[in-house]
Parts: sequence; C-alpha cells; structure tokens
Amino acid sequence: MPMPQHVAEGTGQLKIDNGFTIGLDGYKDARLESARSRFIGTLSRVTGIPYHNDVPSGEPTLIVKTTGPSDAIQRVGEDESYHLEVTSTHALLTAPNPLGAMHGLQTFLQLVTITPEGFAAPAATIDDSPRFPWRGLMIDASRHFQPLEVIKRNLDGMEAVKMNVFHWHLSDNQGFRAESKLFPLLTGKGSNGLYYTQEQMREVVAYARDRGIRVVPEFDMPCHTTAWFAGYPELASGKGPYAIETKWGIFDPAMDPSRESTFEFIGKLIGEMTTVFPDAYFHVGGDECNGKEWDANPAVQAFMRAHHFKDNAALQSYFTARVQKLVAAHNRIMVGWDEVLQPDTPKDVVIHSWRGPEGLARAVRQGNRAILSNGYYVDLNQSAAEHYLADPLGGAAATLNPEQKKLVLGGEAAMWSEFTPSEIIDSRIWPRTAAIAERLWSSEDVRDVNSMYTRMAAISDRLVFYGLHHQSFSWPMLQRMSGQQDPKYLAVLASVVQPPVGYQRESLKQYDWHSPLNHLVDAVPPESNSARDFDNLVAAIVAGTASPDEWQQTKDQLTLWRDNDAKLQPSLKQSDITAELIPVSQTLAQVSTIGLRALDDLQNHRIADPATTQADTETLKAAEKPQGVLRNMIVSPVEAMVKAAAAQKP
Amino acid sequence: MPMPQHVAEGTGQLKIDNGFTIGLDGYKDARLESARSRFIGTLSRVTGIPYHNDVPSGEPTLIVKTTGPSDAIQRVGEDESYHLEVTSTHALLTAPNPLGAMHGLQTFLQLVTITPEGFAAPAATIDDSPRFPWRGLMIDASRHFQPLEVIKRNLDGMEAVKMNVFHWHLSDNQGFRAESKLFPLLTGKGSNGLYYTQEQMREVVAYARDRGIRVVPEFDMPCHTTAWFAGYPELASGKGPYAIETKWGIFDPAMDPSRESTFEFIGKLIGEMTTVFPDAYFHVGGDECNGKEWDANPAVQAFMRAHHFKDNAALQSYFTARVQKLVAAHNRIMVGWDEVLQPDTPKDVVIHSWRGPEGLARAVRQGNRAILSNGYYVDLNQSAAEHYLADPLGGAAATLNPEQKKLVLGGEAAMWSEFTPSEIIDSRIWPRTAAIAERLWSSEDVRDVNSMYTRMAAISDRLVFYGLHHQSFSWPMLQRMSGQQDPKYLAVLASVVQPPVGYQRESLKQYDWHSPLNHLVDAVPPESNSARDFDNLVAAIVAGTASPDEWQQTKDQLTLWRDNDAKLQPSLKQSDITAELIPVSQTLAQVSTIGLRALDDLQNHRIADPATTQADTETLKAAEKPQGVLRNMIVSPVEAMVKAAAAQKP
Repeated sequence: MPMPQHVAEGTGQLKIDNGFTIGLDGYKDARLESARSRFIGTLSRVTGIPYHNDVPSGEPTLIVKTTGPSDAIQRVGEDESYHLEVTSTHALLTAPNPLGAMHGLQTFLQLVTITPEGFAAPAATIDDSPRFPWRGLMIDASRHFQPLEVIKRNLDGMEAVKMNVFHWHLSDNQGFRAESKLFPLLTGKGSNGLYYTQEQMREVVAYARDRGIRVVPEFDMPCHTTAWFAGYPELASGKGPYAIETKWGIFDPAMDPSRESTFEFIGKLIGEMTTVFPDAYFHVGGDECNGKEWDANPAVQAFMRAHHFKDNAALQSYFTARVQKLVAAHNRIMVGWDEVLQPDTPKDVVIHSWRGPEGLARAVRQGNRAILSNGYYVDLNQSAAEHYLADPLGGAAATLNPEQKKLVLGGEAAMWSEFTPSEIIDSRIWPRTAAIAERLWSSEDVRDVNSMYTRMAAISDRLVFYGLHHQSFSWPMLQRMSGQQDPKYLAVLASVVQPPVGYQRESLKQYDWHSPLNHLVDAVPPESNSARDFDNLVAAIVAGTASPDEWQQTKDQLTLWRDNDAKLQPSLKQSDITAELIPVSQTLAQVSTIGLRALDDLQNHRIADPATTQADTETLKAAEKPQGVLRNMIVSPVEAMVKAAAAQKP
Repeated sequence: MPMPQHVAEGTGQLKIDNGFTIGLDGYKDARLESARSRFIGTLSRVTGIPYHNDVPSGEPTLIVKTTGPSDAIQRVGEDESYHLEVTSTHALLTAPNPLGAMHGLQTFLQLVTITPEGFAAPAATIDDSPRFPWRGLMIDASRHFQPLEVIKRNLDGMEAVKMNVFHWHLSDNQGFRAESKLFPLLTGKGSNGLYYTQEQMREVVAYARDRGIRVVPEFDMPCHTTAWFAGYPELASGKGPYAIETKWGIFDPAMDPSRESTFEFIGKLIGEMTTVFPDAYFHVGGDECNGKEWDANPAVQAFMRAHHFKDNAALQSYFTARVQKLVAAHNRIMVGWDEVLQPDTPKDVVIHSWRGPEGLARAVRQGNRAILSNGYYVDLNQSAAEHYLADPLGGAAATLNPEQKKLVLGGEAAMWSEFTPSEIIDSRIWPRTAAIAERLWSSEDVRDVNSMYTRMAAISDRLVFYGLHHQSFSWPMLQRMSGQQDPKYLAVLASVVQPPVGYQRESLKQYDWHSPLNHLVDAVPPESNSARDFDNLVAAIVAGTASPDEWQQTKDQLTLWRDNDAKLQPSLKQSDITAELIPVSQTLAQVSTIGLRALDDLQNHRIADPATTQADTETLKAAEKPQGVLRNMIVSPVEAMVKAAAAQKP
C-alpha cells in the first residue's frame, strides 16, 4: 500500500534470512547510503533478524541500481518511478534517481512477510510511478505543539506510504511555532516557549529530504494570526492588547493591510524563513477572515475607500496580491487556501482546496494549479473508506478537461490539532492516511474498499516498526482512566465506540487549550475495527449468507458486549474520568440484548413481535445519539438485524 | 515504590486539577529547574492534564524548598533525604539538597491517582531516606549495543524508583562501545560501527546527573577483551589475529600482563575516559579469566617464573594491582568483580559481588567495601519475588558485625544482554528492577511479597509514562510472528509461558550474535501475571478458602486455555517462527484438561481415580520440561490441584 501501477506475479519466493544483503550499484550518494542503512534497520525491526550495516562482500541479495542524481531541491513532478524484480534467488531494483529507489525499497519492505519457510518476498515484477506529484500530510503544530520526535516519526510513516510533501502549519491564533531571529517576540510572546528553533527546522528539512519528502512551511495570514500580535500588536487591525488565543474557533484578529509596515514585516519574515525552507513553494494560508477588525478600524475603512475596495474580500485580495509579490521576490511560489483565489490571481499560485471540490475545479478552470484537502481532514474522525473514495479528480473536478486535470497536483491529508496533543496525534493520522496515500499514488480505478481495509490493516502493523504510536497509544490511556482497576472491561467498551464525526464534538462539550484530553473519546481510534468486523458479520446474516461459524461469532460477540456492563460498572464510579461512561456501558448492554433477541428471531425464522420491534427501534434510535461524547458503533448493525427480523416472510 | 521509611496518613486529599502549580523555594539551581520542568511533563503524562512550564503567579500548590546545593560531583553517601507534607490544600516538600528534592518529587508523583473526585494525592506526611547509598542498574551495551534513547529512557525509569548509579558495561568480547580518540581502532575495529561518541557519553553523564544518578563506566579487563584486540592485537597474550567475538560464553583471549606496554595503554585509556566520566569510581571488571592464553604464551610463563607467581590467579592479582595504581593515579577509586579481591587489595577498592553473598562477606571482612549483584541478574528471568528477597545483608552477610555491615554499600541490578536487543531490553529490566530498587532503598523489614507485587503492578503502569517499552514491546512481536493471522490466540498462549530461568536457555538451543531474537520466548515478559493470578486462585481452592466467584474464575480460565489450541493451531503452521509452538499449544490444552478434571473432582468432593491421577501426574511431569524454549507456568498449579483431588478424604 499504495498499490503499484503494474504488478506481475512470479513463481516462488525470495528468502529473507540471516544471509540477506543489500548493495548499491550505479549512481551513489549520501542519501542513497542513508536510505540503505534505514532499509537495513527497518528490515531488522520488521523481521527481528539482526542485520548490520556492513557492505556485503559477495553479490548482494538485493541490488539497488540508480541511474543518476535527483534535483538538488526536490521538484514537484520530478521522476519518482522505479522498477522492481524479485526472483527466488535475487532482487533488482532500478530507478532513474534516488527518489524512485527509495520508493522501491519501501515496496520491497512491504513484500516481506513471514511464511512457513521463514521471512520471504514473493517473486514479482513491479513497475510503478505515482498518479499525482503532490502527496502530502499537513500537521498543525500550532494548536497543540508537536515535539520534534513526533514530526520525525510521522515523516518515517510518510516515507513508508510514499508521500512526498510535509506541509508544516507553523503559526495560528494559538501559537507561533517557528523561531525568527529577526522578530524574536513571535515565539517570545506567542508560543509559551513551545516552538522549533531554526536549527531544528533545518534538521526536519534534512530528515524529510533524506526520505524523499519536501517541506512546505505555512505561515497563515492575514487572519489566524493572534499569536503574532502577542509580540507585535502593531501588525493588527484591532486595538489589542493581544495574547495567545486559548480557545478553539474563528477569531476576529486580522493583520492591518492599510499599513506599509505590515508588508515590510511580512517580507522580512518570508525572507528569513526561505533561508530555512529551501522548497520552491511557500504556504501563506489566507483562510477564515471574518473581517470584524477591519470593519471596526477607521483607518482600514478609509484605506478601503481610497482604494475603492467594495468589501472585505476585495481588501483581502489586495493583501494576498501584495504577499504574493513578497513570496515571489524570494523566488518562491505561493500556496494559499481557497480564499486566496481571485480573478487576477497570478497563474503560478497553487490553490489549496479545503472547502470542497468546487473550489479546486474553479481554480483549475482559471488556470491555476490546485491541491485537495477537502475530504482528507483526518481530524474529523471519518472512516478510511470515506477518505479513500474522495478523489482529487472526483466531484466537480470530474468534468475538467484533460489539460485542466493536469493542473490538479494531488492532495494532502490535513491533521488539525485541537484535539490531538502528541500523545494522540499518531492515532488520528495513521493508518487512515495510508488510504489517502494510496488514493494519491495509485491508479484511479484502485478503489475496492474491502481490499483497502485488508491492506491498511497490514500497513498499520508495519507502521509500528517505523516507530509510530497509533496502536500503542490507547492502552496506557485506559490504564490512566482506570487507576487501580484492571482496564480490561473498559477495553471491551472502548472497542465499539468512536469519537463524533466532523465538528460535532465541540457541540457536545466545551473544549479549549486547557482541556485534559484524557477521556475515552481521546483514547479510542477514529475507527473501530471490532464494529466494522461486526458490521460485516451482520451483513452476511441479514443477506442470508452467513456460515454457522459466523452465526456463532455474532452471538458470542453480542454476549460479550451484553455481559460486559455488569463487570465494568463497579469500576466506572472509581474514577471521575470514567463516571461519564456509566450510561455508555449500560447502552451497550441494552443494544446487545436487543441484538441477541433479533439474532435469535432470525436464526429461528421467527417473525418479531411488532410491539417489541417498535420498542427496540425506539431504544436504538435513542442510542444513536452520542453519550459521553462517544458514538456506539454497533447500534446501526443491530438496527439492521431488528429490521430484518421484523421483515421475515411467514 | 520504593516504600518510604516513614509514612503517616493524613485526612482528605489534595486535588490535582488544571489549577495545580509547583514552585521552587530556598536554594535554586539549573538542576532543580530542570527537575521542576520534568515533574510538570511527567504529571501531564500521568494525568493527561495539560500543564505548562510557566512559573505560577500565586502561591504554588506544591512548594519545593531546598536548603542548599549538592556536591559538584555526586558523592556516595551524600544526603538523599526529603520530607513531604501533603494536606488537602497544599503540599510542601523540603530537602537539604537537590538530590532529596528530586526523590521527593518522584514520591509525590506516585501519590497522584485517579479518584471519583478527579486526580488527587492523599494527605500524608512522609520522612524518607535510603537504606543503602549505592542503588544501581548495570546495562551491558557490548553484547547487544543499546542506542542512546534506550539508555536515556532507562535513566528516566531509574529516577522514578530512586536508583542512583548507572553502571555502564562498555566493553566486552563482543564489542568495544566507547569512542577513544587516543585509540580509535578500539571502536574502529571492535564495534561494527555501533558505539557511543564521547559527546554522547558526556550527554548521558549530564542526563543522569540531572536525575541524581552517578555514571560508573566499566572497561572489563584483562579478559572479556577480544574486541580490544581486534584493533590492538599487541595487547593480547595470544597470537591472534583477533576479531569481534560473535558467540556467547567465556573465551580465552586475555591481556598480556608481562608487557609494560599493556599498562601504558591501559593508563592512557583510563586517563582519557576520566575526562568523560567524572564519577569518583571506575569499574575495571576482572571476571572470568580462564588463563588459557597465559598458559600457552612462553613469554608470559617466563614472566610468571621470574616474578614467582605460582598460578594464573597470582598473575591476575599482579595485573589488578597495577591497574588499581593506574586508576588511583587518575584520582579514581577502583571497582572490580569478585575476582579482583586478593589479600593485599587496597582497602578503598570496591568489590562487586556477582558469584554469591560469600564473596561480598569476604571482601567486607577484609575491610573492603562491597556491592551486591548476585541475586539481581535480571537477564536470568527469575521472579521479582526472588530478586526482592535477596538482601545485600542477607545470606553470608547476615553474620557481619555492625561496622562491617556499613561497608556494604548496596547493590546493582545487572542487565547482561546476550538475549536483549533494544527491542526487548526494557521488558527484562522493568518492572522487576523496581522490586530491587525497593530492596536497596526501603527498610530491611519491608519484605511482603504480595504487597510488593501489588505496588509493582502500579509502578509498572506508571513507567509507561516515563517512556519505557516494557509493556508495549510484546504485541508488535506477536504480530510479526503471526504475519497475516490475528495474534489474539497466540497472545493467550503467550500469557502463560515464560522464558527458561538462569542459563538453561543456552542448553536448549544454540544462540549467537546472529540469532534472530524474534520468537515467543523473546516476546513474553520474564514473569507471567496470568499464571501468578492463577496460582493464587488455585492456592485458595486447595486451601478450601476459595469463594464461588474464584471457583468460577478458575474454571473459566482453564476452559479458555483448553479451547485456545483448536483456534490457534491452524495459524501456527503459517509462520516458521510459530511452528515450534505446535506442541506448546497442545500441551497447554492437555494440562488445562487435566486441571478441569481435578477442579471438578474437588468441587464435587470426588476422590480422583488413582489410575487417572497417576497418568495425569506423569503427563504433568513431562509438561514441566521446556518446549519451544518456553516454560508452561500453569503446570505447577495444576499439579497442586491433581494432588489435592487425590488426597481428599472420603
């Protein structure tokens, strides 16, 4: 995962044992050497076989033959292809440059699995290259600061699934996270001491480049800028004083476009940051200006009249145009969110669509290039399937002509961090981002959801060996909630609930920067595997295709859930974090009891009593509503069973 | 854990919520500031409440009042005491110096638990100080190299349980792991590129000091030195050529004590290493010389005759005396394993007992100070209870007089690393080392094993928040063994088996440096919690004190184990790592079946049929033997049930 463009299966398999070696051939450089070492380390972790970094003496098992160098600064659209041949005795990976070689190494690693004869890679011939040149992950390091090791291990995960852009959201109302030597108060008063030094950011750039990943920094403006104003209130349109915002949402503060000094400041900052970030692209945000500070500022109003700006959109358009020139002056190409698109936007500006595919199509029709994040917001707790089926060339973009389609560069998974301190963030990014990575790399017609889930489960296990915490994060949180109690019954409840989808969570409970994110909603992954498995069982039962074993599994599962409440209840009162789960656990028992009744009716071809059906349906309807800021994911399959039990023919 | 010397419980509890703050009072320095930040970080992780590092404006909830500084270089026997008062509104920690303050902070962190009213620390007054001044953990970084982050997270774990000596075993036959600028071939040819730079070692020294931990380096000589000879064969008594040893065991190579150049080399190396390690103590090993190279070297034999050395022990004694002078010349005190003790050993040399308490008693009677590691070898997979009950003043040392007892400085958990690559090592050290830490800190009469296990389980969960991998290591290994199969049934088997104890493992299978340590024996912790819980249930049943719930639990547990084999068997053949578990899983089913029969006999007061009893007893006897390099830990309790069922009165 992502699925390669062409795979031809061969005969037999290549054993990966103690004697396995890897050697470089053709063009060599430090990055390839580093990729080789990293491959050896990953192969050791994936297999548990101790490989060492020594250069092999004989002919290596895997030869990596690279034709020539990559660009000094990784370019959008640079060749990323590779060719991989695995036979029962050897493997040969060829690539025009190190980018392709690195992708091929990741493919090889994915081929290695345990077999009855030991670890092995199946014989195969693979030709591969990406569908889109821009396959990104955005991490918001402002709302919750993400320490360096979080960034690094996520870059490792990106490499595993062949993503090539790390979009670093470095400033927002809640924090300015990038050290500026020209403007030290940006972090001095705008970060609570939580920021990246320039040395650390350069380290990330090098770390990413080593993995074939570009780093695009984002400094969001003219809004989402409260943290800037804490140190530099003169940039703002309002009166201030300003302090770091500790709430979530959309806020009024906005830069003052009527003053030349604002642009002088921005120009200098961009200049400074381009010394840290060599990438050709520079993201300036531009989203969600409510214009209230502009409306309230007489000088800004006078400026608008003088320039005949009819509304705030026109004012922002002016601002964007000025900033674009500053970006261009530093030899960078501007990227901005949907809102920056105006009729006169220069054609090289890249539009980053977050509001919907229409924005992307509009930008492209206007001749701009675009990338899609709408549909890829991994903070919203949607299913992997939903992300997977969102295509950069789907929706409104499906009607674009072939030339226009070429302007769609790809997309980015977006990890906004209101609810993701570093303890949790990996679980929101992975493994679902692997499904997005496949969407952006693989052929448009690779869209079988069941196949995706099977392969995503495999890559999820692999990503543990890349150092990601998406599987291990949960248990310690359950222990923390449980105190002296054994968390095993809490874990049963945890396995069937999910966080609310979209922005519903904020409507259920008040949250801000000080809220402890240590509840069950934080400790469960966005998608319940148990519930999905159960859903599949119920689908088979309702369709009449279930095997006796599947009937039994369904019954066992429902019995376990029904009986869990009695075991879990006494401990829930022992901790104030679990007290809110008292009704959640009760509901699970209730829903499971209904499920067992419906299952029994179905198994015995007994038409459910209409009164019972109606009462159960109402109970289930109520159970659909979130409790304890959690969704119970077995309600929907149980509803399906109740419906089927009632609809049986006599 | 470790249990403080004096605890007086108070009334009520101190809430630890969003508003909790901590402030320093009295003496302040960078180390205390760093301890404060670290405390805030740990408290955040332990509670999930986001605390920030800002200095509080009002009166802090917890005041840390320190009288004065610690020594510039931490001294053996330096005051480590503290006094902690927690009331329902505030907490006051007082200590004469930062060492005590840091210990008190760890105690406070352990007091914090989740309650029905949120996180809180119970009101209490605690006076505490250690029983022994030397409470160490030795890590062997030679046989398996341990990356810097492994060392650091284990130092974090040591701080949590108030250990104060990190003994770093830096060289052995299988690798020289410390960069020497004077003798670059030590790592150049003796480390496979896996070593610590001097900068990294200084970083570890500073990291440890920040946590109140001394770092004692060990360079083992004159034997265990093959890795030195790979680069400097002229140091050896044999002809060479030498290469890093890749097998485990005791080997012949030994330094040549007949040549002055040997001592010149050692003196320079010690001098260089004392610039990295400021501690007053320097460990020179001295264990396990078989003397074969000396016997075979005519020059050495001539030297022995000339000096009237009657045997190799006398020759080693000469060597040790020379090395001791070199150590002393650099203002360091020598530490050596048992073997270095001779009648004329200078009185300041510290003897490190690994062979038994007799050696420790002998050293002390001779007027030397001593530390104990015998009984604390955590690589040998003994139970925490065994380590816990081994007392530095127990056994032969119990007969020492009070003055002599003062010469016993404490002890060290010893983590030899033949079977512990970095993936596994945390699980061998933790949580059992917490029991050793308590032995070395707490009063001699704190020795209730059940209480220890209860508290060790709590600290084990806490240590996860210190970054240790001792709980999370297992699941990814089970996944790796299982490949495409769900590891859940393998996990059931894993929960009741343990690695062989002592040196038995090497007699069951051949191992060396190239052996993949990716089997079930590597993936299970040294001590099975499930088996211990089951053991306790069976004890209650056999004693006739079991509740109906305990009878049921015992039956459920045996049923789960009996039925697991049928579910697990099909997948075991799918992976060559699990194939060896086919009989192991069968045995579990067989033993559980016997257990269910005996349980039923006991429950129905039915005297077991003698023939059945005899057949079952033989089956169980056979099941005691390790299979798949694993011990089945329920055999012994099932034997107890069978015996009890047969012994019932009519």
